[in-house]
Amino acid sequence: MTIDYLNDKHPEIFTIADAKRGDIGNTSTMYAKAFFKDLNFDSVTVAPYMGSDSVEPFLAFENKFTILLALTSNKGGLDFQGLKVDDKKLYKQVLQTALTWKNNEQLMFVVGATKSKYFKGIREITPNHFLLVPGVGAQGGNLQDVCKYGITKDIGLLINSSRGIIYAGNGEDFSQKSQEKALELQLEMAKVLKTI
Amino acid sequence: MTIDYLNDKHPEIFTIADAKRGDIGNTSTMYAKAFFKDLNFDSVTVAPYMGSDSVEPFLAFENKFTILLALTSNKGGLDFQGLKVDDKKLYKQVLQTALTWKNNEQLMFVVGATKSKYFKGIREITPNHFLLVPGVGAQGGNLQDVCKYGITKDIGLLINSSRGIIYAGNGEDFSQKSQEKALELQLEMAKVLKTI
Repeated sequence: MTIDYLNDKHPEIFTIADAKRGDIGNTSTMYAKAFFKDLNFDSVTVAPYMGSDSVEPFLAFENKFTILLALTSNKGGLDFQGLKVDDKKLYKQVLQTALTWKNNEQLMFVVGATKSKYFKGIREITPNHFLLVPGVGAQGGNLQDVCKYGITKDIGLLINSSRGIIYAGNGEDFSQKSQEKALELQLEMAKVLKTI
Repeated sequence: MTIDYLNDKHPEIFTIADAKRGDIGNTSTMYAKAFFKDLNFDSVTVAPYMGSDSVEPFLAFENKFTILLALTSNKGGLDFQGLKVDDKKLYKQVLQTALTWKNNEQLMFVVGATKSKYFKGIREITPNHFLLVPGVGAQGGNLQDVCKYGITKDIGLLINSSRGIIYAGNGEDFSQKSQEKALELQLEMAKVLKTI
């Protein structure tokens, strides 16, 4: 499996199981064990809908990160995440509540690049946590805006392009095309970082 | 695999992949294909947090059911599901919104047995959809109350006990112990149904 290859040959690479799990505590513990121990991923994405005891079993694993969905990049992302709860939107409540959970220093949050205008408000709630930012590739988010409003003194952003890279080519030139796309994004990011 | 055995020997049994998936449309389509086509499950549980386009790919499969998390049985279930959105709670908004989605007649909803006092209000929103009700076994929900407030003319309830049955025994008597626990619940349900 790819994860075995990475752990074996490139253990320095931060790996993310974008599995979007979240279940009753008992089951979340089993999922956490599968991703963090058996597969030895560095992190896993988790959905917040089932609340504290569905996420805390992931946070119980030392030296591992739990990346909680906050504001997602897809079209329907705001259907529920954008609903107003008291005086704020649901995704902000999710952020605030998650910051009260045990071991919350091992949290990161998913915030889609397609939602760059929301980054400023998110940074007011969570100034230091890393954000995993999908949506700059196939989904069309703006890298410049994401960095402008999302960056912290430690960078604080994991910019992710999946389909933009892995679907870059589908013939024998697959690995070359993917490399080109990855390099393209890396150079674009380097350029943006110089302007911050 | 168990699912292959069931599909082969007992195709009349309604199977549920309690996988709690939910991702951007592209990925949800792949998950739906995996569970409905490759594994040939009759249904799969799905989390609503990412909104319409994370769920509709599941609903696109004919003769299959998508079981959406509404009000879950776990301790933290109300952390977010119980938040007040406008004049109603989030789980009610999830129900109402889901009923506007394409092919919503192929929806069922997860409502935990531990939340039996909420069943009346839920039936006002969704009088006819089936509810998948976990939590009567290990989690301690009350079967009588669930049936009293949740039942419809077509029954409308799928009562589920997982750990109460599969963890009933862990030695060589495993299958006998499980059978006993399953039978016990079935008899209890038969009794309750006569009183409704």
